[in-house]
Order: sequence, then C-alpha cells, then structure tokens
Amino acid sequence: MAEKVTPRTLAGFMELLPQDQILFNQMHDAIKESYETFGFLPLDTPVLESGDVLLAKTGGETGKQIYEFNKGDSHLAMRFDLTVPLAKYVAMHQNELTFPFRRYQIGKVYRGERAQQGRFREFYQADIDIIGDGELSLMNDAEIPSVIYTTIKEMGFEDFTIRMNNRKILNGLFEHVGAGEIAADVMRTIDKLDKIGVEKVSSELEELGLSKEAISTIVKFVDIKGNIDEKLAALNSFGIENDTYKLGVHELEEVIKGVRLLGVPEKNFGVDLTIVRGLDYYTGTVYETFLNQFKEIGSVCSGGRYDNLSEFYTDRKMPGVGISIGLTRLFYQLNKMKLLTPTKESISDVLLIPMDDDLDFAFKTATALRKSGVKAEVYLENKKMKAKFAYADKLKIPYVGVIGETERTEGKVMLKDMKNGEQRLMTADEIVGQVTGQSVGKANTKIQSLMRRM
Amino acid sequence: MAEKVTPRTLAGFMELLPQDQILFNQMHDAIKESYETFGFLPLDTPVLESGDVLLAKTGGETGKQIYEFNKGDSHLAMRFDLTVPLAKYVAMHQNELTFPFRRYQIGKVYRGERAQQGRFREFYQADIDIIGDGELSLMNDAEIPSVIYTTIKEMGFEDFTIRMNNRKILNGLFEHVGAGEIAADVMRTIDKLDKIGVEKVSSELEELGLSKEAISTIVKFVDIKGNIDEKLAALNSFGIENDTYKLGVHELEEVIKGVRLLGVPEKNFGVDLTIVRGLDYYTGTVYETFLNQFKEIGSVCSGGRYDNLSEFYTDRKMPGVGISIGLTRLFYQLNKMKLLTPTKESISDVLLIPMDDDLDFAFKTATALRKSGVKAEVYLENKKMKAKFAYADKLKIPYVGVIGETERTEGKVMLKDMKNGEQRLMTADEIVGQVTGQSVGKANTKIQSLMRRM
Repeated sequence: MAEKVTPRTLAGFMELLPQDQILFNQMHDAIKESYETFGFLPLDTPVLESGDVLLAKTGGETGKQIYEFNKGDSHLAMRFDLTVPLAKYVAMHQNELTFPFRRYQIGKVYRGERAQQGRFREFYQADIDIIGDGELSLMNDAEIPSVIYTTIKEMGFEDFTIRMNNRKILNGLFEHVGAGEIAADVMRTIDKLDKIGVEKVSSELEELGLSKEAISTIVKFVDIKGNIDEKLAALNSFGIENDTYKLGVHELEEVIKGVRLLGVPEKNFGVDLTIVRGLDYYTGTVYETFLNQFKEIGSVCSGGRYDNLSEFYTDRKMPGVGISIGLTRLFYQLNKMKLLTPTKESISDVLLIPMDDDLDFAFKTATALRKSGVKAEVYLENKKMKAKFAYADKLKIPYVGVIGETERTEGKVMLKDMKNGEQRLMTADEIVGQVTGQSVGKANTKIQSLMRRM
Repeated sequence: MAEKVTPRTLAGFMELLPQDQILFNQMHDAIKESYETFGFLPLDTPVLESGDVLLAKTGGETGKQIYEFNKGDSHLAMRFDLTVPLAKYVAMHQNELTFPFRRYQIGKVYRGERAQQGRFREFYQADIDIIGDGELSLMNDAEIPSVIYTTIKEMGFEDFTIRMNNRKILNGLFEHVGAGEIAADVMRTIDKLDKIGVEKVSSELEELGLSKEAISTIVKFVDIKGNIDEKLAALNSFGIENDTYKLGVHELEEVIKGVRLLGVPEKNFGVDLTIVRGLDYYTGTVYETFLNQFKEIGSVCSGGRYDNLSEFYTDRKMPGVGISIGLTRLFYQLNKMKLLTPTKESISDVLLIPMDDDLDFAFKTATALRKSGVKAEVYLENKKMKAKFAYADKLKIPYVGVIGETERTEGKVMLKDMKNGEQRLMTADEIVGQVTGQSVGKANTKIQSLMRRM
C-alpha cells in the first residue's frame, strides 16, 4: 500500500458536516420554492463552457479569477456567474423559447479569488431573470421586489429593506450638470458616500473637474430625504430638465406603484437614490436588499434591469430584469452568527432499534412507516443499547422505536419522544399519526421559519 | 461592438429546454425523496479537488478522462465520481461523523470521454452509501435493494429486476478450481457470457490455462438455473469445500432473507451468479438493476459492498455498501424513447391575463394565490389576446384567468381550464380550491408516476 495522502478540501470551497448541510438545503429549498411560486422555469446549464463563449464579453481575455484550461484542442472555462450562461442559452434557443422567458437557476459558480475567511471560490448563486423578446414591460421590474420579499420572508426574516433606484435618474442628473462624459467616475465617487462622507466626496468630485454648482446640485440630490412619496415628490420638484432624468423618475414611480399593488409592505422597501450596482451593466431599475439588523453582511439580494442580455451572441435585442442571491456566502455568515435554526434538524423521523438479532418486525415496521411517508432508519449494528441511543441523539432524530420480544409479540413498538423522554407502545399506524402530526406534516407543507424571527 | 461569438454548448454536456428540465427535475426529486425516506443524510462536496487527493488511488497518475489543470501553484482536478470525494470526506471527518454514516449525494461529475451520442462528459450521479467504523452489519446489504426498489418504483416503473450476487462466491469457486491467481482474467471472461456464449467463454478459459475439469465446473456453475431458492439450494449442494465460497453463499442467503423481510416483491429481485461489477473494488454483495422491457439500457442502478472505503487516506478501516444511479444518461435514454410523462408539465398553475393596463386586481389576485401555495404568473406584456393565450399554451399552464373590467367590478376572475376549455367566474379562494384539488395537491404530496406505468 502506497503512502497515505492527507485528505483535505481546497481552501475557499465550502464543504459542510451533515447538520449544517441539512440547514443549507432548507435555505436552498426555500429559495427554490419561492421562485417557483412566481412561475419561474428551472434551468441547469453546464459548469464548463467553451472559453470563447464564456469570455465573449471580454473578447476572450480572462481575468485572474477565471478557472480555465485546455483539454485536447479545446479551451474550456468554468462559469463565474449564471448570467453569461443564460445569455448564451437564450441566444442559442431564441427560436425555441417562449418569451417573456422567466427562468431561475440555483447552481455553483467559480472564482479563483484570493483566499480569505468568508470568501468562496466555489459558491452557489440563486438567480431569477425575466427576458423579453425585443421589449419587456416595466411592470416586470415591479414584480421583482415581490419575489425578493417572498423569498427573504420564506427564509424567516422580517426586518429587511429592499432598496430601489433607477439608473436613468443618476445618468440624467450627470448629463444635466455636464458630467455625462465622466458619469462612471462620478458614480464611483458617490458610491463611497457611506464610507467617506459628503465632504470627501465633494472634494473628490472637484478633482474630477466638476464645477462648484454641479457639485452642489449632486450633493443636494444625494441628500434627498424622506419616505418614498416624499423622495418621489422631491425628485419631481428638483428642477432638472433632462429627458433621461424624467424617464427615470417616471419609471421609478410606476415600479413603486406596482410593488404596492403586489402587497409588499411599506416597511420592507424604499427608495435609495445612491444605489448604483456596478457601472456598465444595468440601465434602469436597480435593487439591493439589506437585513436591517445585519447591514454589515452587505446586500443579500441584488439586481436590476438591463437593455440587452445577449448582445455578444446575437443581434436580436433581449432586455431583461433579474436578481441574484449569493447563497453560499449568506449561509456562511448567518450560520456563523448562529442565526439559523432549522425547522427539522434531522432527515429521519424515527430510528427503530431492534434489541436482538430478530429483525423481522423491525424491517416490516420500517417499510410500513416509509410507505406512509415517514422517514425511518433501522439501527443494524451490533452495539450496546447506549451506543444505539447515542446514534439517535447525535443525529437529532426526534423519535426512537425500541423493538424487543415483548414488542414483537404485541406487534407494537415502544416509541420514545427524544425531546421529553415520554414513551408509549404504538402500532406502525399510530407512529405515522404521531410523527406526521408533529413533524413531517409541517415539513411537507412549507419550509417555515428557517431562522429565528427577528 | 465586437463580432458576435456563436453561442453553443460543449458536446457531451446536457442542457435542456424548460419542458425537459421540468421532467428531469421531477426524476431528480423522486430519487432524492426516496433516499431521504431511508434516512440518508445529504452531502455536497466540491466539484474541484486537489489533484493529489482526487487521484490518490492512482498515485497521482491521471487517465485521459480526468479534467485537470494548474492554477497558481495548485494542481486541481474535477471529480469523476462521488465515491472518491466521499472517501476523502469520511477520512477527513472521521472523528466528527456519526457511524454508520448514511449519506446520499446527487451531483455532477466529469469525464472527458470520446464524444458520442448518449455519452456525457458532465453527468449527474445519484449515490447512497452506508459507511461503518471498523465493521458494518451485513443487514445493510439487505437494505440497499429495498432502497433501489422504492426509488425505481417512485420513478414509475413496475417491471424491473434487482439482480444480486456475492463476489466471494466466485472468488471461492476460482480458488477451488485453482484459478485464484488469475481470478480477474477469469471474471473478465465470464462477464462476456451474455455476449459471446458458453462455447467461446470455454475456449477463452482454456487459453487462460484452466484445466478441462476446472472449465467444466465453472460452466456448470454459471449454468445454475431456477428461482432464488433453487439457486441457493444448488449453491449449497454444488460440492465446493472452500471457506470463501461458503461465506459468500451464507452472506447471499442472509441478505436475501433481509430483502424479503423488507417487503421487496419476489418479482423485483433475483440472484444472478454471473454479476461481477468491476474487478477490484467490490468484496461481497453486488447489485445490478434492469428495466426488463429495456434491457438494452444496461443496469440503471448498480453497486455493492466494499471492505475499505478510505484506504488511500487513513489506516482506519471503513467498510461500506452503496449504489449509484447514472441520472443524466438514464434520463436521456428514457426521454429519447418517449417513456417519460410528467405529473405536472408546467411550473405555474395559473396564468392571469389582464385585458387592459389596469393591473390592480390582477396583482392582488396573484399575491393572494401565491400566499395559498398556488404558483401563479401575471402576463404583463402589451400583446394581442391570442398571443397571451399562446404563452399559456406553450408553457402548458393548466389554468388561465382573464381579468377585464367586468371581472374587476365583480372581484372575480374568469378562470379557463385549458384542458377542456370550460370557464367560470371565480374568486381567488375558489381558484385556490380548484387548482389545489386538481394539481397542486397532487404535486405537493408525492411525485407520482413519472413515467407511464409499464
């Protein structure tokens, strides 16, 4: 036998122990369930794509983050997001898909970032996008916050805010003050507002060559305060005669109207005029979502409207709107803060423990339970009773059914509730009733409060 | 704008259109649900591993099939199965896991095989394994066929056979006839029995240097016929005084007893003394599963017992038993033969179609439906009525709810059943009843007959 290889998992690759995996899966399934409630169709694109296809946007030039390699004559790359594969897919199948094409994809993506705590090189993204053929109604932008609201609620959170903006407003403002050419630089500067404050932002804007008047207008703009309606009123009376600006304000108003009609509570959304979300990609509505008690996590769900999804693959214009949840990172942070409590800690509902070698009744009971939808295991190893119970304990299985000669004769199982220690002789049918009423029923209807409500 | 890149997906990488993806996901979920019914714990290991870890068995030497590359100082490889990552995981976490460790993993694996129809380079495997610490009761081998039975039934099949054997029987037989040293060659030859027939096998065995008597014993052995009990009786009276052989027969008898206790119908399992399942890996019970009407597909679920899962990483002995379903290939073949019929063809239950720009009632109704677990979309594009209905038709959404001025005034929706064309004015609550009774209820309880029963 050759020397042993040290078993290890690569840095930046999340690999969970079973208890955490169960929790992660509940979060994953809550998102999936929520996305499907809005009728989004599932998609599962490959992890590997041809290098030139995946890197079409950059002309094949790759950043350091891309995992890429040659195999035979092919240059291959691992996907670094779910948007580029979607753009490829939609362009490929433009004549087979039905538009608007509403799809979700929850899958792993790869970025070879510098390894550090809480940064992952393999991580799940959970995306939805709505893609139009030629055009796409603005009302789709209104539906997205409703999806975000439902999804974050489904995860168990109450105190969160979906912040919305429209990129056209800022673009129009910059055009108005003569900063249209350097809009990207100005946005980058404004983006630092929270971190460096108004004065430093002003001086940086001055360095960019903006006039005092222009800076004053921008500072006044980013200082707009109030509730949603007050902000909208302020935008309308701000006195900017610019078509892009006006269109942006109009779109924002319309989207807000739709969000209200869809029943998203006022406390869960707002207008944030400083949100930019990247510099090139988005062209209209943008979204960020913050857990108000944990703002340090950053936005947990972000996205926006874009004009042309597949421009690198086709001339056909396909505008869209979408969002993404960085599932792996979010799970890591919430779990680290011990904010996650599963509705069900184990997979099995019942562990059957035969007291001797006679497995007849235990096996028959297990099969009967499974047929009724109860998740059941039989402990089969030759160990002491204490070790058998310790197994149930460690796996947090809520019920243990002991089967000895007495039980076999009576055709019943001594079922012990591991939470309160109570035990009672029960038939398989009675166990189904007991377990389904208390745990499986719940689990089957809906993933409920994954986290402590806050 | 740079020249367009032709959007394409790599050969050997399955990427489905939405209708097929829905079907695939139902198959995926049926397997997952079945595995969980037996209390298997979820595991999700990374797609990428360190090259030396993944290739420990081969001393780091890689076959042509492995996708591997260097990034920075690291030699990385994409997993080619789910067993090696499991071996690594169990060795890494041997002091944190609870044994027997019962885990399932459904995930993509990568093999750069020569591209040909029906062969995939990226494909899903759906595995379960039960790993013991030091030892593992033989009764776990009896539970596996019950998992296979439940899983294949869950997919909608009736006419299938789980074929079982025990590697010790053949090994003992070969020792007995003096072919112990060339057991691997002999097995390889016997494995061709179905393809080339008894006579050619005999002559090949002669070429291997076996005596006439030895060949006659082997031929007599592989010719053992009858039902399970007749075969077991024949094995016992075959007259071979060899401990390995006897242990193998005893194990097979015990496992069969267990399988019967677990209620697997006699018609769905059998003993096949020629099953080998690879040459080095398995050490006891082995399984193959055939759809009797589609034997050309090959085994759809295979596996067996092995002595030492993690021997390349640790001295601790961890025996196990497991199976694997090649999900992608199975889906491809069944779908190609048009054998798959989904229980539910769409994600959405209802498409709401507003007849004009007033979205108020449509949005409120959609939110009410979603809160009650009905999957609902609102058609938001400015198209003709015909195009709106065509959208529902193409996506196979079972109900369409039209909302015009009359409906808004009455606070009801004109719900049309797309199957029979019937339509009726209904409140949101009534729609929930109608839809839940007929489609969601079913979908929520259990994935039922995925395929036409056969």
